[in-house]
Amino acid sequence: MADAMPSTFAVGGREGPTAGDEARLAVALTPATGGVTAAKGFTSAAVHAGVKPSSSKLDVTVLAADRTVSAAALFTTNLAQAAPVLVSREHLARTQGRARAVVVNSGCANACTGEDGMANARRMAADVAAGLGCLPQEVLVASTGVIGVALPIDKVSAGIGAAVSALARGRGSDTALAIMTTDPFPKEHAVSVQTAQGTFTVGGTAKGSGMIEPNMATMLGFLATDADVAPALLRRALEESAKDTFNAITVDGECSTNDCLIALGSGASGVVIDDETYPALLEGFLAVSRELALGIVRGGEGATKLIAVNVRDARTEADARQVARTIANSPLVKTAVHGADPNWGRIVAAAGRSGVLFDVGLATVHVGGVLLFENGLPHDDAAPRAAEHLKQANVAIDVSLGTGGGSTATIWTCDLSAEYVRINGEYRT
Amino acid sequence: MADAMPSTFAVGGREGPTAGDEARLAVALTPATGGVTAAKGFTSAAVHAGVKPSSSKLDVTVLAADRTVSAAALFTTNLAQAAPVLVSREHLARTQGRARAVVVNSGCANACTGEDGMANARRMAADVAAGLGCLPQEVLVASTGVIGVALPIDKVSAGIGAAVSALARGRGSDTALAIMTTDPFPKEHAVSVQTAQGTFTVGGTAKGSGMIEPNMATMLGFLATDADVAPALLRRALEESAKDTFNAITVDGECSTNDCLIALGSGASGVVIDDETYPALLEGFLAVSRELALGIVRGGEGATKLIAVNVRDARTEADARQVARTIANSPLVKTAVHGADPNWGRIVAAAGRSGVLFDVGLATVHVGGVLLFENGLPHDDAAPRAAEHLKQANVAIDVSLGTGGGSTATIWTCDLSAEYVRINGEYRT
Repeated sequence: MADAMPSTFAVGGREGPTAGDEARLAVALTPATGGVTAAKGFTSAAVHAGVKPSSSKLDVTVLAADRTVSAAALFTTNLAQAAPVLVSREHLARTQGRARAVVVNSGCANACTGEDGMANARRMAADVAAGLGCLPQEVLVASTGVIGVALPIDKVSAGIGAAVSALARGRGSDTALAIMTTDPFPKEHAVSVQTAQGTFTVGGTAKGSGMIEPNMATMLGFLATDADVAPALLRRALEESAKDTFNAITVDGECSTNDCLIALGSGASGVVIDDETYPALLEGFLAVSRELALGIVRGGEGATKLIAVNVRDARTEADARQVARTIANSPLVKTAVHGADPNWGRIVAAAGRSGVLFDVGLATVHVGGVLLFENGLPHDDAAPRAAEHLKQANVAIDVSLGTGGGSTATIWTCDLSAEYVRINGEYRT
Repeated sequence: MADAMPSTFAVGGREGPTAGDEARLAVALTPATGGVTAAKGFTSAAVHAGVKPSSSKLDVTVLAADRTVSAAALFTTNLAQAAPVLVSREHLARTQGRARAVVVNSGCANACTGEDGMANARRMAADVAAGLGCLPQEVLVASTGVIGVALPIDKVSAGIGAAVSALARGRGSDTALAIMTTDPFPKEHAVSVQTAQGTFTVGGTAKGSGMIEPNMATMLGFLATDADVAPALLRRALEESAKDTFNAITVDGECSTNDCLIALGSGASGVVIDDETYPALLEGFLAVSRELALGIVRGGEGATKLIAVNVRDARTEADARQVARTIANSPLVKTAVHGADPNWGRIVAAAGRSGVLFDVGLATVHVGGVLLFENGLPHDDAAPRAAEHLKQANVAIDVSLGTGGGSTATIWTCDLSAEYVRINGEYRT
C-alpha cells in the first residue's frame, strides 16, 4: 500500500460517504442566504422574553409557515425526555406530519419539570395557535437550556404574543441567535437546489453544545424547505440526511433530554418531490445539515479542532459506524489529537474494543493521509509528518479494517481539551 | 421516601453488592503482609534489566511457585492483543490450567510488534522454564508499557536469568514495584482466610493506568493463594471476583491491548477448596481484588476522587451494571464530580441514554446519601449538602431505577480533571 492516500476530510463539500451519490450528480447546489427562512413560505420573529437574564439576548422565537405544511421530526433517544419533546411527538402523531409553526425558547430546557412542565409546553403551543389561528397540535415546541428549572411561563407567553405579531420574512438570522444558549457562534446555512423540474431552497439553523453553563439540554436543529413534499418523504429525507450529519457527530458521547431536529416543507417553490426529485431534496438536506452539524462540533465545549474519523473496508456500514464512533468518543484519541500526538496505538486500541470483528493485522491507520500502521506494525518514521497535520484545525483519521467488505462511515468529533473540563467542572449553583 | 439514605460507599469493606453474601458470613478475613507472595509456596524476584531507562527502576519480575500449580487467567477482550497475551492464552490452553511461574516486564508492552514480538514473548517463557527446569508452556507472560516498540529481548533475557537466580520468599513488594510503569504508587494486598477446614492466604498485586507516559497498555493483576484448588474452581473464583472488582472499575472506558489478570493456587496451606470452602476462596479473592482495583482507580490518570456509582432496583443485574457503567463513563458526570457540582441532571441524562428501559418518573438519585431527584422532579434545596459531600475524596452516587426488580450493581470510577487531558495530550515522540 502506498505511504500516502487522499485524505477524506471535506468540510461542507461533496466528498465523503453520503447517500445518493449517483443521483446527486444530476443536481446543482448553490449557496443561498437567509438561513432557516431562506425558503419561500416562511416567516419568523425572535424576542427577548426574559428567560435569559441579559436583556440584550433573544430567547423566544417562532418559525411559521404561511399555511399548514408538511412536517417531520427526529427526537432524542434518551429515556429522560423533556416536556417539549413529549408534546411535539404527540402533536406530530395527531396531525400525521403536518404543522403550521415551531416555537422555541432558550435559557430553560423545561426538562425534569413534571406535570407543570407539560402544561407549560402545551401552553406555548396554544399561545402560538391562538396568534396564528391554527390548532395547537399544529405547533411544535422545543426548549433548550438548564434542566430541572421551571419555565417562567408568563414571560414566555408574553414573548410568544410579541413574536407572532412581529412575524416577517428574511429574519432567520434572529432565530439562529434566539436558539443559542452558550454556543460560541450562531449556526445557519441555506442552499438553492436546481433540478429539471425547477429550483427549490433548503434553509436551516441549529444550536449545539455551548460553553460555560453546564447541565445543558443541547442539540436543536430546524430545516425549512419550499419543496412540495409529502410528510412521509420529508421524514425519509430527514432520517437519511441526519444519519450522515447530525447523527454522525459527537462532542462527548452524551445524548440530551431535549435533542430534536424538525423539518418543514412549504411547497411554495412548486417543485414536487417524487421518486425522481427525491435525490435532489436529500442532497439539499445533506448540504445544509452537514454545515450545521459540523458547526456544532466546531463550537463544541473546549473544542480547538474538528476531527473526521473515516472508517473504510468494513463488512457492513453498521460495523464501520461503530468503529468510527468508538474512536471518535475515545478520550485517549481525543486528547492525543489535542496534543498533536500521532498516537496510532490509541486508534488501534479503540477500534479493537469497539465490539466489531476484524483482523488487526489487516487493518491500516492513516492520520492526515500519512500511513502510521500496517500489517500489525507501526511506521514510526512517518510520525513527524502526521504530527504536523495534527497541528491544523481540521484533522482526518482514516482507518481501513481490511475486511474486503468495502463499507464505509464517517463520524465527526472534536478534540478533548482542559477547557472542556473547566467548562463542565465549574460549580453550577 | 426519606430524604437521606445510608451511602454504600465502602472501600475495601464488606458492604456493597458482591457475590456469596450468605456464605461469607461464615468466613473470617484478616489482613496479611507480603502482597503477592503472602501465600505459602511462592517465591519472587525483581531486577532492573534495562527496559526502563532509569537504572534505579525494577522492570523485570518473576513470580514462581515451588512446583507446578493450578492457574487461571482473564485476558483483554480487545481484538488488538499483545504478544504476551496471545502466548499466555496458548500456554494455559496447552496445560489446561497449570503453571509454574509468571514473568512480567514493564516499560514495553510488546504490542503491535508482529512476529518478532511473538518470538520475544515465547523467549521470555523459555528463559524462565530453562532456569526453573519446567516446560515453557508452564510459564505465563505479561508485559506493560509503550505499544509498538520492540522489546530489548537480550536485556530482558539477561534480567530473567538474574531474577530466576534470585528467587526468594517475602519479596512480593519488589514485584509490585517492578510491574509499575507510571502508576503513582504500588498496589499490593493480602488476606488470611479462616475456615472450618483451616486457614489459607490470598495475596495479590496490580498495576493500572499510569501518568505522564501516553500510549500505555495498562492493567495487569496477579493473585497467588496457597489454597488447594483445582484449575476450574480457580478460574470460577477469578471470574466471579473480577466481575465486582477489576471488571467493575473504569478510568476512561478504554480497554487495553495487554490487560490480564492471572491467579495461581499452590495448595501449600493444605486447605482444599470444594463446594463447602469455595465461598471462602471467593471472599478472599474479592477482598484482595477490591483493594487492588480501587487502588487502580485512585491512581487513575489525573484522578482526585474515587466515585462509587451504585445502581439499585433494576430489573436485572446486567441492566444495573449497564446504567452504572454509562454514568461512570460519562464525561459530564465525571467533570461535575471534579468540580463538586451535585449535577443530578447529568446523572439522569446518562442513565436515560444507557439503553436500559426504566421509568424516569420512578427513579431516584442520591449523591452522598442526599436525595436530589425523585418523582421526576429535583430537590434543589438539598444541593448544597450534596456539594459538601462531593468535596471529599470518596464520592457515592446512588441511583434507584424504581423498577421493582431489586437487582443492583456498583461501578467504581474517578473524576475527570484537566490533569487527565494534560497527561494524555502531551506529545509522545
